[in-house]
Amino acid sequence: MIHRVGLLLFPGFQLLDVAGPMAVFESALSEGSCPAYKTVLLSAPGGPTRSSGGVVLETTALAQSAPLDTALLCGGMGALQADIDRRIDDFLVAHHSTGKRTGSICTGAFILARAGLLQNKRVTTHWRFARELARRYPALAIDAERIWIRDGVLWTSAGVTAGIDLALALVAEDLGQDVAKQIAQELVVYHQRPGGQSQFSALLEIGQAGGRFARLLGWVRACGFRHEAGRHSDQLPATVPI
Amino acid sequence: MIHRVGLLLFPGFQLLDVAGPMAVFESALSEGSCPAYKTVLLSAPGGPTRSSGGVVLETTALAQSAPLDTALLCGGMGALQADIDRRIDDFLVAHHSTGKRTGSICTGAFILARAGLLQNKRVTTHWRFARELARRYPALAIDAERIWIRDGVLWTSAGVTAGIDLALALVAEDLGQDVAKQIAQELVVYHQRPGGQSQFSALLEIGQAGGRFARLLGWVRACGFRHEAGRHSDQLPATVPI
Repeated sequence: MIHRVGLLLFPGFQLLDVAGPMAVFESALSEGSCPAYKTVLLSAPGGPTRSSGGVVLETTALAQSAPLDTALLCGGMGALQADIDRRIDDFLVAHHSTGKRTGSICTGAFILARAGLLQNKRVTTHWRFARELARRYPALAIDAERIWIRDGVLWTSAGVTAGIDLALALVAEDLGQDVAKQIAQELVVYHQRPGGQSQFSALLEIGQAGGRFARLLGWVRACGFRHEAGRHSDQLPATVPI
Repeated sequence: MIHRVGLLLFPGFQLLDVAGPMAVFESALSEGSCPAYKTVLLSAPGGPTRSSGGVVLETTALAQSAPLDTALLCGGMGALQADIDRRIDDFLVAHHSTGKRTGSICTGAFILARAGLLQNKRVTTHWRFARELARRYPALAIDAERIWIRDGVLWTSAGVTAGIDLALALVAEDLGQDVAKQIAQELVVYHQRPGGQSQFSALLEIGQAGGRFARLLGWVRACGFRHEAGRHSDQLPATVPI
């Protein structure tokens, strides 16, 4: 049976947060070479929704959405705004109450957190915004080093392109690692990245320049070897001491 | 002055081929923190253009396009079709004749080749389609290992996500490596990937299973160390013996 994935958008979403997971799900075939996923684009009001880069995508209103198997919040600068439509929170709470999979890409974690889904959960987000997420929502166990984290049915991912890694992990859970690996090859990305988010970040420069991320940086350095072993599953207990 | 980038689309384009470079250009700021690029979406007829995954993007007709500084062909399964609108070829020839930068992402190289721009040029494309590109256009010097290649004003890139690497290289040329590095950090990708396309491909499996890519595979293995040094500029003379 086809797996329904809903990508939840809002004004100012990042198009790459949408396109990455979509390309993964589009490439996933079940036995018999049928599409394994149907991806739908959703927003609170429905209709045209503008990305931060000015591209407009047509969306279905949340109230019109058929039930989803997986709901994923996209990220983007718009996710940090206080005026994000509250209907998204209600939709997320209702979806989450069914026990189905829920997740976020990049700063989409801010919206999951606002909806109350991430209380006491181990989560990740874009390295640049990890500190702000911790400030707004102190009850979260944030691990800014991780490319993605699963905590039960909740899956969060690091910045922007980490949405591809997250989608590959979801496909691996649904259809097996071999299918996920083939898709990674088609998209010319790592099946599992050898290392955590900090290798792609400015954490080192930030640490050297102002010390704002000194404790995070220390943690990243201390855990470097462990993460370079390429383990990005939910088996690592560490949380980052922001 | 703002740099105008045109992304050329067609029915069946891959959304990720568009979103990757757009995210790079969107993040590039010139001195004074002004946007350094304006990205426009173009198609032969203009109007709504549907991606392979079913997402519709609004485009400007090629005939209505203001002059571009850089024209980039997106890839996707649609690029392999024979009925791609011929107005794209005319547009490319006219743009190229001005001496401005022209390039392709993934299978977009097929359209550049059809327009006659890649004759005797060193080019790359998605690893899976390198053999087919060589069959259709024997006068191309294809290097399927490379993430991107520059040959004069012509820039081609490997499959799908390599469009991000290509765009970072263009930004590095325009604004310097430091700006490109910062953007890579924002998008959580490598500034310069440590290694070539084959590490992300099924070339090894193909080589073992059927030998179809045996010569290519041998070349990849022979050149492995050179590419692992992370040199993806246009200084490598090697072409792949497909």
